[in-house]
Amino acid sequence: MPDGPAQILERLVDQRVTLVLKDTRELSGKLLGSDEHMNVVLDEASERSAETTRHLGRVVLRGSNVVSVFAAHGPPGTSR
Amino acid sequence: MPDGPAQILERLVDQRVTLVLKDTRELSGKLLGSDEHMNVVLDEASERSAETTRHLGRVVLRGSNVVSVFAAHGPPGTSR
Amino acid sequence: MPDGPAQILERLVDQRVTLVLKDTRELSGKLLGSDEHMNVVLDEASERSAETTRHLGRVVLRGSNVVSVFAAHGPPGTSR
Amino acid sequence: MPDGPAQILERLVDQRVTLVLKDTRELSGKLLGSDEHMNVVLDEASERSAETTRHLGRVVLRGSNVVSVFAAHGPPGTSR
Amino acid sequence: MPDGPAQILERLVDQRVTLVLKDTRELSGKLLGSDEHMNVVLDEASERSAETTRHLGRVVLRGSNVVSVFAAHGPPGTSR
Amino acid sequence: MPDGPAQILERLVDQRVTLVLKDTRELSGKLLGSDEHMNVVLDEASERSAETTRHLGRVVLRGSNVVSVFAAHGPPGTSR
Amino acid sequence: MPDGPAQILERLVDQRVTLVLKDTRELSGKLLGSDEHMNVVLDEASERSAETTRHLGRVVLRGSNVVSVFAAHGPPGTSR
Repeated sequence: MPDGPAQILERLVDQRVTLVLKDTRELSGKLLGSDEHMNVVLDEASERSAETTRHLGRVVLRGSNVVSVFAAHGPPGTSR
Repeated sequence: MPDGPAQILERLVDQRVTLVLKDTRELSGKLLGSDEHMNVVLDEASERSAETTRHLGRVVLRGSNVVSVFAAHGPPGTSR
Repeated sequence: MPDGPAQILERLVDQRVTLVLKDTRELSGKLLGSDEHMNVVLDEASERSAETTRHLGRVVLRGSNVVSVFAAHGPPGTSR
Repeated sequence: MPDGPAQILERLVDQRVTLVLKDTRELSGKLLGSDEHMNVVLDEASERSAETTRHLGRVVLRGSNVVSVFAAHGPPGTSR
Repeated sequence: MPDGPAQILERLVDQRVTLVLKDTRELSGKLLGSDEHMNVVLDEASERSAETTRHLGRVVLRGSNVVSVFAAHGPPGTSR
Repeated sequence: MPDGPAQILERLVDQRVTLVLKDTRELSGKLLGSDEHMNVVLDEASERSAETTRHLGRVVLRGSNVVSVFAAHGPPGTSR
Repeated sequence: MPDGPAQILERLVDQRVTLVLKDTRELSGKLLGSDEHMNVVLDEASERSAETTRHLGRVVLRGSNVVSVFAAHGPPGTSR
């Protein structure tokens, strides 16, 4: 399946993405890599909750907490 | 089983579908692909919660958060 | 085991079934197929919550959300 | 292990059992079969919650919702 | 590992044990057997919640609900 | 990886450890053994909740409830 | 994938990291090692909740409770 989840994640590498977590927090950063569990590495990441923004730098996220990953709005090369 | 879950998901590719998540949010978009964990890729996706609609573009959803997938109402080729 | 869960689900194919989900919602529809994770496909499905009924058409349900599946009341061929 | 969980479940086949679910509901019925995930089939099942009893007939229960299975009180052949 | 979890559970067979479940209920009974998922069989089991005791007889418990298993206080042969 | 989780747990055998569970309870005892699921056996264990201490003796804990394991404060041979 | 989650975690070994858990607690310490489940070992760890800091020393954390791991702010060698 050429447009399966793993392929799409691979194509998003080096793009800025937004990641929604189960606890509703959102992280944005440049996607460095991911694996078959949807564990994800973001670079220059920041976390946005209701009232604050926190800069995390390079962060490894465990896939079991991930709800969705999508290209951050704005950059060239996204599908919208 | 010719009408098993994997086969039906494959037949829904390129159709507009609605996806219900465990946290009751719903996403609609064109189904690009899926895998054996029910990880799903939607294109031109938008997320509808009780009071807002948010445009996400192309989004990868982790299967563990998915409750159900069904053909969006209206388009030709659905089973109703 | 001739009356194991997989065998019973196979025998329910093409019958109308009711499906209870973890979030207490119930869906009814014709069982099209299922797999070893208890992912299920219903046709002509409708979802009944406390106050509304929603027609979904053909729907793929992720097994991890399923509590139980039983033959809908009324049709010939059920075991009661 | 001659008295392991799988062996005991097999010996309970065709006996009336009570099944406790994670959401505290209880189902009683004749055990038709089970599998290695503790998915269970009950025949002539009824579900008892705090205030109501609902007759379900033959029902397939997903093991991930099961807390415990024990022989219903009263019938001959139980271990008490 | 001679004192690993599986070995200790095997040595507890035929002793009275107490089992703590995730929903804080506790069951006591004679341990008949267990398996690699920590599914457990108790004989002559009783369940103790805050205000009641319920006699269950022989009961199969799904391991995913188990928090801990320990030798019931009092009998000879326990490690305390 | 010489300092991976399994290696560290093995080196903690026969030392007094504290175990934090998902439900925030803490158990202390001598670590007898563990396995690849982080199922753990403690000897001479006691459980400390907000207001009480309960002596459990030898206890098998299911890994899925474990958050963390660390050397109890005080004994020689810990890393602090 | 040279920048996959496992590779990044390996490169963080011997650096000070912060670990966010599902229950929102945060632990900081020197990363000693990790495995494919994202079980993690921290040395000289301390746990920070809303109002207290607790020194834990060397601690093994079960991966299923981990949300994210990132290089603690300040030390040389981090990616920001």
